[in-house]
Amino acid sequence: MFKANYIPVLFSLLMATGNFAYADAAENDKTAITQTLKQYEDALNHSNTEKIVSLYTQDGIQMSPDQPAFIGTDALRSAYEHTFKQIKLNLAFTTEELELLNEHTAMLRSRSDGAIAVVNPETPAKAAAFKELFIFKKQTNGEWKISRYSFNFQPTKN
Amino acid sequence: MFKANYIPVLFSLLMATGNFAYADAAENDKTAITQTLKQYEDALNHSNTEKIVSLYTQDGIQMSPDQPAFIGTDALRSAYEHTFKQIKLNLAFTTEELELLNEHTAMLRSRSDGAIAVVNPETPAKAAAFKELFIFKKQTNGEWKISRYSFNFQPTKN
Repeated sequence: MFKANYIPVLFSLLMATGNFAYADAAENDKTAITQTLKQYEDALNHSNTEKIVSLYTQDGIQMSPDQPAFIGTDALRSAYEHTFKQIKLNLAFTTEELELLNEHTAMLRSRSDGAIAVVNPETPAKAAAFKELFIFKKQTNGEWKISRYSFNFQPTKN
Repeated sequence: MFKANYIPVLFSLLMATGNFAYADAAENDKTAITQTLKQYEDALNHSNTEKIVSLYTQDGIQMSPDQPAFIGTDALRSAYEHTFKQIKLNLAFTTEELELLNEHTAMLRSRSDGAIAVVNPETPAKAAAFKELFIFKKQTNGEWKISRYSFNFQPTKN
């Protein structure tokens, strides 16, 4: 049996273990969110509307320049289909900050740099850069999806 | 003295009171956030840079179209000063959704409708509309300030 004066030490150890477990969970969540962003980047660069739509929550909202907010799967599908008929994107996203706000919500701010080419009539790609603010939501199956997403252009790096 | 079979009832009453207290706190927070947005609207329409800067957290970030992210008080002050030398805004914000994410963080999505006039050379105001995604942070003094803010144009209502 433990003596009474070990109890505070044991309690501290248990609390520390709890904190490590929490930190691990947070790191796992951050890794999963970064993977979703990478999947979004890939799908965007391959004009893959269905993949993109699957990365949003069902009530997901995209806020893009000069457009109304696109709310929900059907509106998102239509918006991305329309975009990919007009332009081909080649962007690399860089996460500037990622903050877990509660166990199923995170904020991510990023920039993306690359090029845009008009598809029809086909034109050479031009350098382009954007900056993004995302809200991600963890789904009941553990996946992190895009819940809210606002972006706009910014000056290119060069 | 209470009989033992009242205890579950009392417990339920205590829990319900706790829930009401939590709901009240949430309502108070939402009211305070809406007031900050109203103050921002007023300051924007009066080209009041110092008031605007005071509504941001010290590490606040504004993400506006075609500009780099403006990070922190000095960059924000400079950005709004520059904007107000160029344009006069007259906008009314409408909150589309407001979600408390933890006890000191909230997301707010809005639209704003009104007009923009170029200041120099002076030109008639033209109808304009924007959509906004905000992260608000509660300060230690209880004030809610703008922490992250991304916006872009959208079609006007008419």
